[in-house]
Amino acid sequence: MSQPCIRNLKKNIGEEVSLSGWGWNIRGSGKVQFLQFRDGTGFVQVVAGASDISSEEFDLLRSLGQESSVKIKGKVVENAKSPIGVEIVASKIELISNTKNYPISPKEHGTDFLMDNRHLWIRSPRQQAILRIRHNITKSIRNYFDELDFTLIDAPIFTPNECEGSSTLFSTDYFGENAFLSQSGQLYMEAACAAFGKAYCFGPTFRAENSNTRRHLTEFWMVEPEVAYMDLEGDMELAEGLILRIVRDVLKTCPNELAIIERSLEPLQIVAEAKSFPRISYSDAVQILKNAGENFEWGDDFGGAHETIICSQFKLPVIVHNYPSSIKPFYMKQASVQSGEPQTVKNMDILAPEGYGEIIGGGERESDLEILKNAMAKQKLNEKDYEWYLDLRRYGSIPHAGFGLGLERAVSWICGLSHVRETGAFPRLPKRLRP
Amino acid sequence: MSQPCIRNLKKNIGEEVSLSGWGWNIRGSGKVQFLQFRDGTGFVQVVAGASDISSEEFDLLRSLGQESSVKIKGKVVENAKSPIGVEIVASKIELISNTKNYPISPKEHGTDFLMDNRHLWIRSPRQQAILRIRHNITKSIRNYFDELDFTLIDAPIFTPNECEGSSTLFSTDYFGENAFLSQSGQLYMEAACAAFGKAYCFGPTFRAENSNTRRHLTEFWMVEPEVAYMDLEGDMELAEGLILRIVRDVLKTCPNELAIIERSLEPLQIVAEAKSFPRISYSDAVQILKNAGENFEWGDDFGGAHETIICSQFKLPVIVHNYPSSIKPFYMKQASVQSGEPQTVKNMDILAPEGYGEIIGGGERESDLEILKNAMAKQKLNEKDYEWYLDLRRYGSIPHAGFGLGLERAVSWICGLSHVRETGAFPRLPKRLRP
Repeated sequence: MSQPCIRNLKKNIGEEVSLSGWGWNIRGSGKVQFLQFRDGTGFVQVVAGASDISSEEFDLLRSLGQESSVKIKGKVVENAKSPIGVEIVASKIELISNTKNYPISPKEHGTDFLMDNRHLWIRSPRQQAILRIRHNITKSIRNYFDELDFTLIDAPIFTPNECEGSSTLFSTDYFGENAFLSQSGQLYMEAACAAFGKAYCFGPTFRAENSNTRRHLTEFWMVEPEVAYMDLEGDMELAEGLILRIVRDVLKTCPNELAIIERSLEPLQIVAEAKSFPRISYSDAVQILKNAGENFEWGDDFGGAHETIICSQFKLPVIVHNYPSSIKPFYMKQASVQSGEPQTVKNMDILAPEGYGEIIGGGERESDLEILKNAMAKQKLNEKDYEWYLDLRRYGSIPHAGFGLGLERAVSWICGLSHVRETGAFPRLPKRLRP
Repeated sequence: MSQPCIRNLKKNIGEEVSLSGWGWNIRGSGKVQFLQFRDGTGFVQVVAGASDISSEEFDLLRSLGQESSVKIKGKVVENAKSPIGVEIVASKIELISNTKNYPISPKEHGTDFLMDNRHLWIRSPRQQAILRIRHNITKSIRNYFDELDFTLIDAPIFTPNECEGSSTLFSTDYFGENAFLSQSGQLYMEAACAAFGKAYCFGPTFRAENSNTRRHLTEFWMVEPEVAYMDLEGDMELAEGLILRIVRDVLKTCPNELAIIERSLEPLQIVAEAKSFPRISYSDAVQILKNAGENFEWGDDFGGAHETIICSQFKLPVIVHNYPSSIKPFYMKQASVQSGEPQTVKNMDILAPEGYGEIIGGGERESDLEILKNAMAKQKLNEKDYEWYLDLRRYGSIPHAGFGLGLERAVSWICGLSHVRETGAFPRLPKRLRP
């Protein structure tokens, strides 16, 4: 007897199988019971006739509470009406643990209640589908960079207190000294690309921002590639390739999951078929806002609402480049500008379509020691705290570029979610540290 | 003209190529210069005859400082003496940035100096080889679980203050509340395996332990699988399979890197050829210590020195199981014992050979609600803080098991390192938060 899983049960048509899992829902009559059964890989209907199993087993089934753990033996038979094409005709039912009063019944529940019961909510079909898509997106990202011969360099989480002056940092006592939790591995990846040519990190990052919006988590995963001898043009192409890879892979590997969450496929297919994405300058984006009647001045930074307006003009992700240097960090490479024009930097953000906004931010880094020192002085940063980072310009300085993609925002867009809280199993928000 | 990388340069024999990178070392005469050149993927010798390039280029080469960034054009020719089988006959040299007084010269440096300059030290051949092996081990681990149909569920880093009472936790202010940095994703993976059947997490974990040993980091990556309906025997097999996969993959994918760090291959080959690993009980291990003349009593916990003695008896990783429950956490499954025998748990640790000691710890988890509550009371834990975890025993409780493998300890063993500080690009130790 083989021991298959529900996801691949079509391979076992005609076979007698044994499955361990949980009862999800039971209905039926005195003659036949229909059990919705899950094993963690999928859901299947188990049909149990009163004459096929013992009367004790039949009674057990009739009184089975949702999420009771059970083992099932039975024959896999074709069923065209089943979403997975098969059902199981039971020959044996074994109870492992009976569950009564499972909190998440099929009726509607409020979001707070579901979030409080996140450890159980992740058993529901929709949450399972989203988390499987997240897993597949993670795989696509790693495969993309590995196949391009990048070296994975895990960035540290603990960074010294001097490194950034921002108020959005979580801090901890580190053996008598203050340490901050990393907001980005970029500075470390700049060192890594000078060693390995092409490097990336992919791990959790942290923002102590008290933003209660549909786009903000306090803890989120970010992938950050950095490449020596790459310019802004190459950076855009690398980012474009990553998004194309993610969208194409997910359409191929997760059709069932996308169907379960009822994701409209057309917007994703349009992206998958693209060869490249539209590119507009920051100034073009400002014009879009003005045309839309927004009160927005050149030099202001985009908020979430502005991003939504800009990206709604396009069916593809849109690359916005050359922002004013005044609103960007010191390490951005200064663009050459005509006299009289305001100073911009060689950066780019990518805004996802369907109103999702920024999922990627990056650009070329300043490689000239003196220009970098001046930019640091302007932003009132203490040069001494960045000595190791400045070393990268003293010893073998190179043109280089990179970007960061936020995993949860990408998952949110790909899944078409209304809030980023469903993109992870145990999301962390300003008001949510449990379970 | 193709744009290849040094690692695969053998494919380009006879071709004219263009490479961007850094000069590592220069020597020669007035007629010919030999430049050791690196591009991040490897090292190659560039031969530049005085008549092959301009006199300006030749003079530039002669005065080139270590780690100057340069672009090279030239022809790839076979050279049996080269470690990569080829060298380059230069036709053009272009300076990007000249470097003077690179701090890490070919002479010997002290460890503190090298660690202070870790951002530059990672450019050295030995450090590059170790970090490439780490990348490949990470890949092997992810492939192993993905191919076994596990779902990746990223565990949260922030956990509520009530969750563990230990003094080895880093804490941070979380919007007015205390949050701790996760030491393990296990409890969350137990919820995940009840949802997905087979789940794993793989991310950074934290220990605020002021241990200045060759085995301890304050921040390290851990992979933690957890499987529903799996017992201790299955857990051992899963862990065995993982170690075999890592060792076999690294021998196949990283022969050059292992050669660069002069790793003795025989001990790894012995492991790669094994079908399974020796299994001894905790009591057997105690006997080994007593036979070695150690003053060790049944019921004591093993320290690093004890582990070294035990694992030195074996050429393979050794699985030590059934420790006394008194020295193990509350969630471990109680083993059935004969009357009069002391209580043990269904756990296992795996000790790596060659003196490396523990790299894996895991076992079956207690699935009975009342036994679990009693164990929590004994260890003076507040039941209220674990309500969500206890829910996993209230709703669809199942036998289940899992383990954790510490990435850096595995890398340390595979690479044969004397200290865990070289296993990551930017290691964090009690006395090391920089660079």
